[in-house]
Amino acid sequence: MPTVTHERLQAIGQSLLTASGVPDDIAFSVAASLVDSNLKGVDSHGILRLPHYLAGIREGELQAAARPEVRADRRNSMTISGNDGFGIFAMEEASRLLSARAKNSGLAAVSLIECGHTGRVGQFAAQIAEEGLFALIIGGGAHETWNMVAPHGGAKPILGTNPYSMAIPGGPSGEMVVLDFATSAVARGKLLDYAARGKSVPLGWVLDAEGRPSDEPTVLKHGGMQLPMAGHKGFGLGLVAELLTFAMLHTQETPLETFNWLMLALDIGAFTEIDDYHARASQYLEKVRRIPPAEGFDKVLVPGDPERREEAERRRSGIPLPDAVWEALAAEAERYGVALANT
Amino acid sequence: MPTVTHERLQAIGQSLLTASGVPDDIAFSVAASLVDSNLKGVDSHGILRLPHYLAGIREGELQAAARPEVRADRRNSMTISGNDGFGIFAMEEASRLLSARAKNSGLAAVSLIECGHTGRVGQFAAQIAEEGLFALIIGGGAHETWNMVAPHGGAKPILGTNPYSMAIPGGPSGEMVVLDFATSAVARGKLLDYAARGKSVPLGWVLDAEGRPSDEPTVLKHGGMQLPMAGHKGFGLGLVAELLTFAMLHTQETPLETFNWLMLALDIGAFTEIDDYHARASQYLEKVRRIPPAEGFDKVLVPGDPERREEAERRRSGIPLPDAVWEALAAEAERYGVALANT
Repeated sequence: MPTVTHERLQAIGQSLLTASGVPDDIAFSVAASLVDSNLKGVDSHGILRLPHYLAGIREGELQAAARPEVRADRRNSMTISGNDGFGIFAMEEASRLLSARAKNSGLAAVSLIECGHTGRVGQFAAQIAEEGLFALIIGGGAHETWNMVAPHGGAKPILGTNPYSMAIPGGPSGEMVVLDFATSAVARGKLLDYAARGKSVPLGWVLDAEGRPSDEPTVLKHGGMQLPMAGHKGFGLGLVAELLTFAMLHTQETPLETFNWLMLALDIGAFTEIDDYHARASQYLEKVRRIPPAEGFDKVLVPGDPERREEAERRRSGIPLPDAVWEALAAEAERYGVALANT
Repeated sequence: MPTVTHERLQAIGQSLLTASGVPDDIAFSVAASLVDSNLKGVDSHGILRLPHYLAGIREGELQAAARPEVRADRRNSMTISGNDGFGIFAMEEASRLLSARAKNSGLAAVSLIECGHTGRVGQFAAQIAEEGLFALIIGGGAHETWNMVAPHGGAKPILGTNPYSMAIPGGPSGEMVVLDFATSAVARGKLLDYAARGKSVPLGWVLDAEGRPSDEPTVLKHGGMQLPMAGHKGFGLGLVAELLTFAMLHTQETPLETFNWLMLALDIGAFTEIDDYHARASQYLEKVRRIPPAEGFDKVLVPGDPERREEAERRRSGIPLPDAVWEALAAEAERYGVALANT
């Protein structure tokens, strides 16, 4: 398994993207987002996505040079279209516009439609929180083509994984508390991982095709389905996400197979002095972190801590890439005549 | 166990409250909210709370005649104080003000501070959603005195049950989708119920005082603690709730032992024609309801359906009250010289 520095991975990503016709600024932003996910240990949203993005461009599904555009601008909310371009770039722009609006008016919302894969959404929630805002991002709207989660008590999938991401400043040091979770009991990647290792999964993750509890990680291949997190609670969160992103944000023009996103930002400074907030937040979080670990745990970690830990480590020692990922990058480099830069 | 009509329970509640010095309009609103919880089958937030409210008035903790007051009014957000009066009345007023503001500007936020017990918060989320809005209500801020939930991986409680409530219209028929859940794995009432029946609880609900998994519903009496729902996800939701309601909403003046509330409302009509929303929402929800049940279930219910079912039944056949609840009401009636109205 090769280990690659983040600078080198960034250079490779940018080169492949620009060789595919992606403008420099978009290529930079997309590569940086993927590498950032690798740095944070969220490899499922890292550079392994790049070959799929490049294939999307070749197949005409992803517009290499498309830029997001404000489609509707109301007093406190905007609708932004990604124009079928990179979701990562569109969400970065949308987060910037949303933050500026919320800083100005105390509270703002953006709907983001018509864009490709948005990468690790927690990145954008954190980007918004860095402005002293509370961020909430909810995704979905594609249940007609992307249904894999059953409702609580049901035996047919009708929800997507309908992610929620939240971020809020953690104190004066600039650390953000970042949540980023699917409303299914586990991410699909975890099922694949159990399947690859021949392990059975705990009850409560999946049902078989007949709606019976199963411990078999491969049920999805045979008509099975995922279960929502926390029973009716996760089902409720997923359903609300789908009502917001499908029933509220879907239009005649928006495709039913891509996600729509609702993004909200609230200015903490509208309610309190930000310095007072920082003092109270950091004091509380330190108390939480100092709690003695429960049986089977080393330490209490605040959401965002595991990623910061991993990032510090990988900035030092590099990003380990599975052979298959590295080989896929090498194949793309060959295709586009790009060198796998050695820096 | 006596069965009482909701009209009679409303009359009893109002009489006891007015006899305690509560103005007519507040007495009506508080009694109606408690009876509404009983009608919906959420007895934990029903009329059994009334004796505690009356005791609060006698002990000077709850101001019988206090009215909520707008303390700060910014462009899109308000801070409302309950002035230490009834939380139910304060949240009803806050929801009204929030809805009007959101209908006007597309999006608004209210913080509600300094109020008593707010009853079933889902009632107010639904009240907001009835105006064609998406409602999100988050509570907390009292972790210093009301800590019962451990962080994921930790062996000491430092979170409250930090509830989230959401509501959104479900279609043209006026049915709301209403979520209202604690971020702990289960409500405390459920532990009490298991303890009363001498049953052990599933692993994942509680830890003992040493942070070891336990199936003993009474651990809380012996230094044990509740676990968050869905592991790190519920912990994250609870932590964000506490950062918003403690670190953002707490001030020198607000007491550390009562909850603060953050309430958000978003106008669906700002993003789409409400009729189109209703059509898409009801179509989708019908699809969800028609999904065949999984093993062990009768029917797929959308959040809000169980309460509607129960309400239809209890409006017909009355509200069954445990003897202890009825006797407590009778004792209060005796104390205040109020007749247990027979209508």
